[in-house]
Amino acid sequence: MANMNDVAREANVSRGTVSNYLNKNKVRPEAARRIEAAISKLHYVRNATARELRTQRSNYVVFIVPTVWTPFFAELTYDIQAALQALEYKMILCISNSNYDEEKEYVDMANEQKVAGIISISYSQLNDYVDPHMPLVSIEKEPTGHFPLVSSDNYAGGRMAAEELDQRGCKRLIFIGSKHLASDAMKARQAGFTDYCQELHCNFSIYHFASGRHIQDFRNEARDLLQQLRNGADAKNIGIATSTDEYALEIFRIAEDMKMSVPEHFQLIGFDGGKISANDQPFLSSIRQPVKQIADAAVAEFNKLAENKTSVEVPRIMLPVSFYEGKTTKRIVSNQ
Amino acid sequence: MANMNDVAREANVSRGTVSNYLNKNKVRPEAARRIEAAISKLHYVRNATARELRTQRSNYVVFIVPTVWTPFFAELTYDIQAALQALEYKMILCISNSNYDEEKEYVDMANEQKVAGIISISYSQLNDYVDPHMPLVSIEKEPTGHFPLVSSDNYAGGRMAAEELDQRGCKRLIFIGSKHLASDAMKARQAGFTDYCQELHCNFSIYHFASGRHIQDFRNEARDLLQQLRNGADAKNIGIATSTDEYALEIFRIAEDMKMSVPEHFQLIGFDGGKISANDQPFLSSIRQPVKQIADAAVAEFNKLAENKTSVEVPRIMLPVSFYEGKTTKRIVSNQ
Repeated sequence: MANMNDVAREANVSRGTVSNYLNKNKVRPEAARRIEAAISKLHYVRNATARELRTQRSNYVVFIVPTVWTPFFAELTYDIQAALQALEYKMILCISNSNYDEEKEYVDMANEQKVAGIISISYSQLNDYVDPHMPLVSIEKEPTGHFPLVSSDNYAGGRMAAEELDQRGCKRLIFIGSKHLASDAMKARQAGFTDYCQELHCNFSIYHFASGRHIQDFRNEARDLLQQLRNGADAKNIGIATSTDEYALEIFRIAEDMKMSVPEHFQLIGFDGGKISANDQPFLSSIRQPVKQIADAAVAEFNKLAENKTSVEVPRIMLPVSFYEGKTTKRIVSNQ
Repeated sequence: MANMNDVAREANVSRGTVSNYLNKNKVRPEAARRIEAAISKLHYVRNATARELRTQRSNYVVFIVPTVWTPFFAELTYDIQAALQALEYKMILCISNSNYDEEKEYVDMANEQKVAGIISISYSQLNDYVDPHMPLVSIEKEPTGHFPLVSSDNYAGGRMAAEELDQRGCKRLIFIGSKHLASDAMKARQAGFTDYCQELHCNFSIYHFASGRHIQDFRNEARDLLQQLRNGADAKNIGIATSTDEYALEIFRIAEDMKMSVPEHFQLIGFDGGKISANDQPFLSSIRQPVKQIADAAVAEFNKLAENKTSVEVPRIMLPVSFYEGKTTKRIVSNQ
């Protein structure tokens, strides 16, 4: 079925001009003529309106996200909004601060208001209180069996972090995760790291630091660890991988304060590969999540649910991560 | 009038628990008893519902923003959402990519759907097509006379950037802005910088670089400038202020590639003071916008409009900026 973008392309005008035409705003007569021709040629029916009539639900999609105030979540929110907009959905932005009660409140709201559905990065058990008829796609959560899941391959990412450090000459590998918020994604990252190290007989350790609101506790623990590493016998051959970019950035800053330089004193790999804007070239080496693919897949799955075009099987989409080489790891020197 | 937070405080439970109670979800009997007592004591009426009945408009607020994918806009969106939520509004997130047609489309949608109103960071002339009865608060835009404006004091910020560089011993001051998107905020920043330099007889220059989608053009121009500065007679006493943090970060990265270190080769001050997350301690010195105050003021003004509690005068709220001392400027050594 043709959508607004198709009409715009066919008429050789911008999507906004098509929208203005449909909303009876002024557009140039020549543009109006071309749009009319395109609509008639493509048998265009306004998606949003047609869908509302067909599904008896609005075009609002509730997007539940812990925050928008980190590079990863800002990018994800940006991409999900763009993907929803291309299908003429509107986004109701619900920031949960990872609070179960807030998430539940948003779900209640969604149930009451007959929204088109929910896309959620939730760390609580949605199964228990979401109406099973509500179209819902979950991002990054363990598969619940009820709702489609879209996620990065976190386990492979954990393995990749260990492997990249190993290949860069690190003789001691360290993984730093969080004491709290041990979501399945975080567990998978750690498991991948651990499995790689065990299979390849690397010398490795796992640390769980305090996190969340108690950033100062995290900083103290990280400082102690770096102190210890600096005085250790194997200093300079250490590689640190963290479960998130935020932790890696904290560790980088603490190292700077302690006059330990990265990657000379130790190499460092984050997780997420968050960019602070479209043009950003992060200095932090990281396991990058395929943000745009996650957003596109989540919205595509969501749209299938909303349009009742689903199969019996609940899809579970795992998307590959990649290593982003920033400035906190050493370059691999080719042997040739 | 008591709101949900007051009820939660009085009953000594979380806001979410009050919400669950009101939505007829299970809460502990003891909590339910305390909530009932609090509701009756405070004569609480659910804000959202009461407002919907009174204003004949929904509780959705359209937030039009160029992007959420920069630290400044991510933080602002986060804070606006929190402020709206405290008043039981929901946010429809509309990302315009600074595209006039997109903005217009969102405004049309707002008009059609009887939303509570609009909060907008728009760089186009909203006056021309917003229904004058639509509650609308504008952030960072020049005063239109029709809608309340909430803005940082950009002019004072421009002056402040020049003054901080001057006080740190810079003998040549440079301001780098954008060729395109010359919004009034950007113009005010540059005007403040210029006025300070002229009044204090500083040696200064203004550069306008390419920007926006053509980041490579910006990078080329910045590289040429740094090359020139490095070879100049007054190298090492140079101070650069930019119209946004993004430009400053680009310049920092280019300097790194050229092995020019900051603040030794030149000092650098951005504008916005964007943090990439709540715990971030940016390394970039910058003129920080009071993001939370902007969000709170915009939502407070919005709520007055939505509740028809406005005076004849259209408010214009200018909030003070501050200097954030990161690591790209030298420390001022006290003479005492």
